[in-house]
Amino acid sequence: MPKYHFEDFPVGRRFETESLTVSEADILDFARRFDPQYFHADPDAAKAGPFGGIIASGFHTLSASFSLFFRLHLVEHANLGSPGMEEVRWLRPLRPGDTIHMVAEVTEQRPSQSRPDRGLVWMRHDTFNQRGELIMTANCLHLLRRAQA
Amino acid sequence: MPKYHFEDFPVGRRFETESLTVSEADILDFARRFDPQYFHADPDAAKAGPFGGIIASGFHTLSASFSLFFRLHLVEHANLGSPGMEEVRWLRPLRPGDTIHMVAEVTEQRPSQSRPDRGLVWMRHDTFNQRGELIMTANCLHLLRRAQA
Repeated sequence: MPKYHFEDFPVGRRFETESLTVSEADILDFARRFDPQYFHADPDAAKAGPFGGIIASGFHTLSASFSLFFRLHLVEHANLGSPGMEEVRWLRPLRPGDTIHMVAEVTEQRPSQSRPDRGLVWMRHDTFNQRGELIMTANCLHLLRRAQA
Repeated sequence: MPKYHFEDFPVGRRFETESLTVSEADILDFARRFDPQYFHADPDAAKAGPFGGIIASGFHTLSASFSLFFRLHLVEHANLGSPGMEEVRWLRPLRPGDTIHMVAEVTEQRPSQSRPDRGLVWMRHDTFNQRGELIMTANCLHLLRRAQA
């Protein structure tokens, strides 16, 4: 695991993840657990629905996309927990058999005013499918220990 | 399933979900699939981490919270897919054995300018634990069919 800290995330630094293929079984399994709307959970009913077939829950798209980022283990060592996200946008459906990857880029790096042992890093997280189409984007705040802490 | 449409979500309408207890096994299972950082996936290592034990991934807290909302089946019938979320905030950890529920309230209801068959509804989604502490909040945009469509 790389021992990255707050200082290792200057504005403009980019990271690209491995890719992941999401199967129909993956979509149905997540839907059964977390989002049983018919267009995620029922392939037959979904054919007549707004997407012409099942698509992944937006929360599945989020979780699967960020799983690729977390498997880089970049923020794990210094991570003090994410305070939140802004501008989550589901732009295109994630369909069975699609292969996704994420590109993350640092957009802001700000030392904490009150706690000298930590700082905040904003990253833009873009998820693309196998055709290079942007399917989701989110700005995520990462609270990270400083190297000298 | 209630056949709710855009018109059924006036500003100020509130919905409260059932509750859900999240076990250590649930947290570890989600972490293994989607967020294997040690403070989600490794109970022993997590004891020495920033949270003093394992906590649920923020994406697990999101997914589990919204699973309660989707199981109300309020937005399913008229749902054309969510464009996105704003102001996702993870305020307190979700720990093994915690019991959560969600309160959702409509904050804006806007007919589409370009498509008379649909409209946008902003809802604030608050997740509370068994002590009544707010652990997560998110503003989610719902794109819904109109009743006359």
